[in-house]
Amino acid sequence: MKAAFYNGNKKFEVQQVTVANKPGPTEVLLKVAYCGVCGTDIHIYHGNMDQRVQVPQIIGHEVSATVAEVGDQVTNIAQGEKVVVRPLQVGAPHPSDSGYTHIGKNLKFIGIDTPGGMQSYWIVPAYTLHKIPTNLSLQDAALVEPLAVACHDVRLAGLSGGEHVVVLGGGPIGMLVAMAARQAGARVIISELNDKRIELARSLGFQVCNPLQQDLVKEVNAFTANALADVVFEVSGAQAALDAMPHLLRVRGKIVMVAIHPQAKPINLFQFFWKELQMIGARVYEPEDFNKAIDLLSNQQEPFAKLVTEVAPLENVQQLFENIDQHPEGMKYLLKIND
Amino acid sequence: MKAAFYNGNKKFEVQQVTVANKPGPTEVLLKVAYCGVCGTDIHIYHGNMDQRVQVPQIIGHEVSATVAEVGDQVTNIAQGEKVVVRPLQVGAPHPSDSGYTHIGKNLKFIGIDTPGGMQSYWIVPAYTLHKIPTNLSLQDAALVEPLAVACHDVRLAGLSGGEHVVVLGGGPIGMLVAMAARQAGARVIISELNDKRIELARSLGFQVCNPLQQDLVKEVNAFTANALADVVFEVSGAQAALDAMPHLLRVRGKIVMVAIHPQAKPINLFQFFWKELQMIGARVYEPEDFNKAIDLLSNQQEPFAKLVTEVAPLENVQQLFENIDQHPEGMKYLLKIND
Repeated sequence: MKAAFYNGNKKFEVQQVTVANKPGPTEVLLKVAYCGVCGTDIHIYHGNMDQRVQVPQIIGHEVSATVAEVGDQVTNIAQGEKVVVRPLQVGAPHPSDSGYTHIGKNLKFIGIDTPGGMQSYWIVPAYTLHKIPTNLSLQDAALVEPLAVACHDVRLAGLSGGEHVVVLGGGPIGMLVAMAARQAGARVIISELNDKRIELARSLGFQVCNPLQQDLVKEVNAFTANALADVVFEVSGAQAALDAMPHLLRVRGKIVMVAIHPQAKPINLFQFFWKELQMIGARVYEPEDFNKAIDLLSNQQEPFAKLVTEVAPLENVQQLFENIDQHPEGMKYLLKIND
Repeated sequence: MKAAFYNGNKKFEVQQVTVANKPGPTEVLLKVAYCGVCGTDIHIYHGNMDQRVQVPQIIGHEVSATVAEVGDQVTNIAQGEKVVVRPLQVGAPHPSDSGYTHIGKNLKFIGIDTPGGMQSYWIVPAYTLHKIPTNLSLQDAALVEPLAVACHDVRLAGLSGGEHVVVLGGGPIGMLVAMAARQAGARVIISELNDKRIELARSLGFQVCNPLQQDLVKEVNAFTANALADVVFEVSGAQAALDAMPHLLRVRGKIVMVAIHPQAKPINLFQFFWKELQMIGARVYEPEDFNKAIDLLSNQQEPFAKLVTEVAPLENVQQLFENIDQHPEGMKYLLKIND
């Protein structure tokens, strides 16, 4: 079998290795079909997560696969079934987790803290698997994990239909949030700077504002007949977006903080007070978000496949990451691991 | 009758003026009993709100009173009744208010944007009045307005009992939040720097941490058996409190932003993401918060009167404000307007 090892310093090496060991009693051996490249994988490639990732490491966590073999005690899944992986290895409970195992203190993220899916065969705990319906292709199913992030964000926002939503940042997650919010019944406007991404968002049916060319507050006012937005999803990571967000919201509007801001950033707390705004941090997903993402991909109400920029064979992993770096307009990139 | 006019430049002048005009059809003429001094009044005195307050202005909005005369169309209140004032003059609805009239775009705050309660007789809209029960003295009732702020904060936090709460800042509002949270069933620890305020908080039965002398995170860990806090109320206005707050909270813990931070401040957004924290802005109150505050003051489960540092006659208003400036440990100061 083949595996792509990340060795640090922006270098991958694809090696022939012996097939993974037999799965343990509660584990499953997967024949990996596709593995998407996450923004986090790019951060790892850039060396931003060197303190956390032990090289050489097989990374990747946006996986669709076929079950090759199941452990003796596995009853929820059978050989030959098509699945996706919810890459969260639940740790020992901690009192401050408050029961939220998906972001518990002792959580390990599979594909970052432990070996990931950029390999032909991969062993994971059986509880991480979700079956996919027969009408969902393994290629499309590689989008379940990032779409589950978006479904989680939309669920934490409490969207129930009829809301006005602003998505700040039209990258892969921003676009998936916009689509998931639209499926939840919201009217969505996207703020994005990149011309190609703007074009893509418009082709997907979204109203788009380039805040360097138009006044975003005015555009949101017009979009909402002066009611302003009910929810802003901050997916850009940019200070300009943080500065804008409170001015886009109605009284008691909500900000869902999706982007990762590694450093402390100036926030207009006066507006939080003045309009009784709420900010909600959102990280990864819970099982119901995976189920929702599988539903949305299966029912085909949204053209999710349009977000896939390129599909490359595992052998080309190095070239693919270099390619991603050179194309800020690119969206989702997938590695095809097995037929 | 007498009225205290604020003339700017830290100067009040008490003048004899003719009695206020007859109340309009939906208005009420009050004989003011007590008027508390709010932190906002101190800001006005310091000139921080010169752009908003038109001098000479009669300020003051923490009022208890007796009804002297009611307008022709007033049916909710009668002459001779004891009342408190919810000092919010509701403005024309705006689409971005989303129905929340207590902080609507066109709201006027009575006693800041319009004349306030530091006068013998005062005309207010009848809808701003809440009757007080006979067992609540007019002096104690002067605490209803600030306690209603605290009840609003506690209500927005969704406290239902059994939570661990940290109050950052043990000034008048912080202490009222602590007491209201305790009455809601929470276990409360207060973070405060001033020795006298620490002493007062302890005499009220609260655990207190001085974060300059003890590690606040360690103290909260010990207080909660490592579960960390469910809710942090930020009432201090200090950057050190903003820096500390995410580290005091459990997964999905909540911050209620009570303090007014006029400038944008650095916030650790990574922790919001990592622990899925929430921040909730809180401003003034709604009618139910006034009702709750009246209930809490009437049932006497908390020794609210211990928060009153000094009661001075209206004539001494200048001296009282100078006194407040010289005593950072002081808590609530009241003006006695009429017997």
